[in-house]
Amino acid sequence: MDNASVSPGFARQPRLSVARIVAPGSIAVVGASDDLKKFGGRIIHYVTRNGYRGTVIPVNPRRAEVAGLPAVPSIGHLGPVDVAILALPVDMIEQAISECAAAGVGACVIVSAGFAELGAEGVARQDRIVRIAREAGMRLVGPNCMGIINPHHRMALTSSLVVEQGELLPGNIGLISQSGALMVSMYDRACREQIRFSACVSLGNQCDLEICDFFEYMIDDPLTRVITMYVEGFVDTGRFAELARRAQRAGKPVLLTKTGRTAAGAEAARSHTASLAGNYRALEALCEATGVTIVDDPDGMLQLAAILARFGRCAAEGVGIVSPSGGAIGIGVDRLSDVGIRLGRLDAASQQLLGTVMNPSHAFNPVDLGNRTTEEMSQLRTIVQAYNQAPDIGVIFVILTTSPHFEQVTLALGQAMARTGGKPVLFLVTPGAVADNCRTLLQDLGLPYVDRMDDAIRILRHYVPRADALPARDAPRPASWPMPEGAGRMLGARPGEPEVKALLRAYGIPLAQERFCRTADDAVEAARAIGFPVVLKAVSAQLVHKSDIGAVKLRLADEAAVRRAWSEIAQALSSQVDGAVLDGCLVAEMVAAQSELLVGAINDAQFGPMIMVGFGGVTVELVPDTQLAVAPVDTEQAIALLRRLKQWPLLDGYRGMPKADVAAVAEVVSRVSWLIADLREQVAELDINPLLIRAGDGKPVGVDARAAMLGPG
Amino acid sequence: MDNASVSPGFARQPRLSVARIVAPGSIAVVGASDDLKKFGGRIIHYVTRNGYRGTVIPVNPRRAEVAGLPAVPSIGHLGPVDVAILALPVDMIEQAISECAAAGVGACVIVSAGFAELGAEGVARQDRIVRIAREAGMRLVGPNCMGIINPHHRMALTSSLVVEQGELLPGNIGLISQSGALMVSMYDRACREQIRFSACVSLGNQCDLEICDFFEYMIDDPLTRVITMYVEGFVDTGRFAELARRAQRAGKPVLLTKTGRTAAGAEAARSHTASLAGNYRALEALCEATGVTIVDDPDGMLQLAAILARFGRCAAEGVGIVSPSGGAIGIGVDRLSDVGIRLGRLDAASQQLLGTVMNPSHAFNPVDLGNRTTEEMSQLRTIVQAYNQAPDIGVIFVILTTSPHFEQVTLALGQAMARTGGKPVLFLVTPGAVADNCRTLLQDLGLPYVDRMDDAIRILRHYVPRADALPARDAPRPASWPMPEGAGRMLGARPGEPEVKALLRAYGIPLAQERFCRTADDAVEAARAIGFPVVLKAVSAQLVHKSDIGAVKLRLADEAAVRRAWSEIAQALSSQVDGAVLDGCLVAEMVAAQSELLVGAINDAQFGPMIMVGFGGVTVELVPDTQLAVAPVDTEQAIALLRRLKQWPLLDGYRGMPKADVAAVAEVVSRVSWLIADLREQVAELDINPLLIRAGDGKPVGVDARAAMLGPG
Repeated sequence: MDNASVSPGFARQPRLSVARIVAPGSIAVVGASDDLKKFGGRIIHYVTRNGYRGTVIPVNPRRAEVAGLPAVPSIGHLGPVDVAILALPVDMIEQAISECAAAGVGACVIVSAGFAELGAEGVARQDRIVRIAREAGMRLVGPNCMGIINPHHRMALTSSLVVEQGELLPGNIGLISQSGALMVSMYDRACREQIRFSACVSLGNQCDLEICDFFEYMIDDPLTRVITMYVEGFVDTGRFAELARRAQRAGKPVLLTKTGRTAAGAEAARSHTASLAGNYRALEALCEATGVTIVDDPDGMLQLAAILARFGRCAAEGVGIVSPSGGAIGIGVDRLSDVGIRLGRLDAASQQLLGTVMNPSHAFNPVDLGNRTTEEMSQLRTIVQAYNQAPDIGVIFVILTTSPHFEQVTLALGQAMARTGGKPVLFLVTPGAVADNCRTLLQDLGLPYVDRMDDAIRILRHYVPRADALPARDAPRPASWPMPEGAGRMLGARPGEPEVKALLRAYGIPLAQERFCRTADDAVEAARAIGFPVVLKAVSAQLVHKSDIGAVKLRLADEAAVRRAWSEIAQALSSQVDGAVLDGCLVAEMVAAQSELLVGAINDAQFGPMIMVGFGGVTVELVPDTQLAVAPVDTEQAIALLRRLKQWPLLDGYRGMPKADVAAVAEVVSRVSWLIADLREQVAELDINPLLIRAGDGKPVGVDARAAMLGPG
Repeated sequence: MDNASVSPGFARQPRLSVARIVAPGSIAVVGASDDLKKFGGRIIHYVTRNGYRGTVIPVNPRRAEVAGLPAVPSIGHLGPVDVAILALPVDMIEQAISECAAAGVGACVIVSAGFAELGAEGVARQDRIVRIAREAGMRLVGPNCMGIINPHHRMALTSSLVVEQGELLPGNIGLISQSGALMVSMYDRACREQIRFSACVSLGNQCDLEICDFFEYMIDDPLTRVITMYVEGFVDTGRFAELARRAQRAGKPVLLTKTGRTAAGAEAARSHTASLAGNYRALEALCEATGVTIVDDPDGMLQLAAILARFGRCAAEGVGIVSPSGGAIGIGVDRLSDVGIRLGRLDAASQQLLGTVMNPSHAFNPVDLGNRTTEEMSQLRTIVQAYNQAPDIGVIFVILTTSPHFEQVTLALGQAMARTGGKPVLFLVTPGAVADNCRTLLQDLGLPYVDRMDDAIRILRHYVPRADALPARDAPRPASWPMPEGAGRMLGARPGEPEVKALLRAYGIPLAQERFCRTADDAVEAARAIGFPVVLKAVSAQLVHKSDIGAVKLRLADEAAVRRAWSEIAQALSSQVDGAVLDGCLVAEMVAAQSELLVGAINDAQFGPMIMVGFGGVTVELVPDTQLAVAPVDTEQAIALLRRLKQWPLLDGYRGMPKADVAAVAEVVSRVSWLIADLREQVAELDINPLLIRAGDGKPVGVDARAAMLGPG
């Protein structure tokens, strides 16, 4: 029972570690049959045909032997096998689980559907088997799953006919999939594309063992170099985040395909496995913070994994292109440009080297090979060399079209590229059957290739390092920004603006000067103290949307204007809001602004504290320009977020505009990010909107602020 | 010499029509050989092996017979064959062209490279062969091309080994490609994907016959149902536009892949074939106006052509999804949502029909088939029926993953869908080799399928009608908007703002009131007439950027403010601009605006008159929100353009804001579009920026305007 973690709700230590479930020493097939049309027939056939070296025990009440192996008549005769796979009708599962628990089985893999995915009745059925298993310390995989494929262990523990297609070929990509049908479809396509796995696991309803159990296993598994996951909804995002950070520290790339990114997709996922999709932008921010790459296509995720497994990470942002076709280059450059990837620059030495084999007017990246004679093939090695030695080129992208001698071209390029110490490389093979020999050549050289430009662009987009990545580090808290004394008690259950502002001041956030006044006389005095012009805002318990009824008066230039505004506000309130009482008014400085930002912070129910910054104003929802990150962020990370905003130039001297004090803005973002992280148990969301950039000194000034608290529990 | 058009520069009527070049009665292969390693060997082999029924004459000075056919020793012995294909080194081409011209050859196909694509020397060489050919009335295809493939005519007139892969299978998609390497690569991939052609033509340098010659031919060709083009740069965009309109009237879909969409891609295209990419947004607008679909991937273009050729156009915007995998559905719905495509709604009858074979809680689109027994396969027919009868569903999208009995599922769905009168359908086959039988089934049923979600999404995105399409029609000019008397003479070579505004007023465009004043006293009087507050703007021949030096003064509330502003402007001008003389000031009404638009118009050098409308302000370049269309547009088309703006809600009562007078705004757009079309020979560009939406009545008011004229010629 090596290093198995105890899941919550477990009555006792689990009998079997996850590692042992992925590579069991013995397997019982309950419902084994010689009829390949039956689940139990296919499963025992697949378990035995791939050279699995452990013990396989068929369970069949009517047969002494199945698939050439001695059978036992019932689960009771099994003894403590590691894993039992149940090929039984759904209404026999509960009984079988009980018997397995009694027999000392380590884990059951339940392929059958008919559980939580079917609604209330199925949920109850699923809860019963979980209870039985947990009481015994027996683990469950599934139900409603496709099992486990472990090529290194020569084990295909699945009913899917995809494992009939050939041998199990071991590799170093780990795949964990919530969907069974997708896992086996991905597996099958990957086989055709020469993508090889350390292990593939499908989880289905995740009634006991969940995605993160296998994620944890794969981080520790020395055979797994890249971890890939298909997820509809997480069981425990906190655990996912923690493991993602662990994988990041271990230098193991983690790739994720997540359904339910869009509202329509979330609706579809919900009706599929009752998974809650969660806030996709928050997931993106979490993945960025933990180094997880989100890929929108599951097969594309495996293609990316393949280049990562082959070459490790990409070291530079530029792409070097080689092709025999200028047309193909044009398309490739357009498509890379669409996703913000640029061509790599050649330094003088690489440029010169390239010039030795190219017409000088064409010695640049992208390299258009044109038609070369077979005698000129050795020149291709020089081209590869030039790219290999250019520091700005992170990856070489070869776009093959047909051309005279294109097999020789493929071979010459491929051989030069397959040498030790070369740059990462990706081939796109655009023709059909005529290029199958080229594909074979590339396979033999162990070089990754894809068939479609879409695939190449997706891979390169994620493989090349992001130019605007946030500085990756755990922000240390500045010693001068401790959590303010009593911060956790400063907001009531439904905090008003003055409470929120007091908290913000305690956190060192600069806010517009303002004073609460009960009379027009007080207001005039306050305005004099603050300095004209001022703003007057009604304060009334009955008033929700101040500006709708004219209860905010701007640019009051003198005493008379303040008095006039006060009486207009009083009048508007009494005439337009039934029973409203004017408690008083806030007198605030009128900030002349050169830009309008907003800063928001949330404690996402699934993903924890998050900080958001963006440009505000009336169009914020129509032309969104905001960035989200996991909180806290330090000031450098905050600056990186600001620089990602489309309207960043407005803070940076665009068209002769004065520059904002970006360091001060970043400090506000960072301080608010500490606030939301400090108060993760209390505050649901808080925002400063607008955060104005003051004309003149370019300093940030918060004007309005609000917060909402988390519910009890 | 049937209906051949005379190209400009032709000394005489061409000897041969384009139709006859695509389907010649006789072919001479100059440089024919029995050695398949040579161009001339491959060409004669490919010409003869596919059952071409015309006459083939090898030309070879040293052999009496080539490829089993009697050869002639020189071109001079040929006589008037329809087409000669030249497999000769580049330095022998000119001589051969002369001889072909003398022999009465109808057209030469020149595969060799080494012409205009190589720079000045190559351009001269190319010009010489064109001159020789035109004097004789002989047509040229190429040089630097891959020839012509005409499956209906059983003719492969190319040196590319892609035609070795199997028989030429005739279809009804026409392909015209500027790039030879791409054409044959596309052809080869298409063969694998069961996409069939009426004809494929590669044009290379287009020295004589150009893309539009073959475009015109394919519009008239009864065997071509869908026309596809790969283009780097157009020779004559006016002709392209005219032909596109003709294809639209003929109901023949036209698809286009264009390189050089992005700045980086345009640079790459320029260095490839010296093609100028042109203004891509203008091309997009032109294509929208003429019904041409732009596709970013050449193979994807052919996949789209295949579904159009099979089913015709799609009639409704909604997509109906069917899949055995909920996971695959989730991904598909997310991806469709990404590109703005929605699921089709079921009407009551379809809903009810679907309910007869689905769990009522799951009887909706997308249909998750789950695992069905073989006995339940007939239910799939009912699902297809339900989708077929739902008016909102334009196309059925089947996502196949592996599942038990997935071949039966494919067969049952496919058979139901292949029936006459069914909706268009697209299959995505996600597994690898395990699904090859499914692919064969679909091929046998003649149903289109793709292997990658990217391909499916691209097809559906272009296949489904656009929800925000502009009303398609030629805008009739309102009788009350004639071209103003003398409009063509109102602007000088470098028109100032007053001239531009006079022209705009003549076109009925509402502009802010303003008056030019020579003294402060005049300005005060003008301000009284216009009504306070006013704006004061310096007018000086030496002044370019008024606002930079404080030469625009806003919100002048009274007489004193006007006088103060006048002297400040005079002061600023004399102190900041050397030798500047204040000619006077414009006094203008201060428009209180609720929104700020801009209207622009250009006469694009390639694509003609265009109208642009968008939201203005300082961020217009950072967060662009503009729409471009071919001018003129009528008011309904203008409204459709306005509705496409991201910030459209600001004109439509967003968050309780007052609505703009959209009809009046659309009228401004339409009137300016007539202006730019009327003055296509004079005006290069003209814009009104800002076009303010007046607070209160929501009417548009132009404030500033400028124009630039076309150069002579």
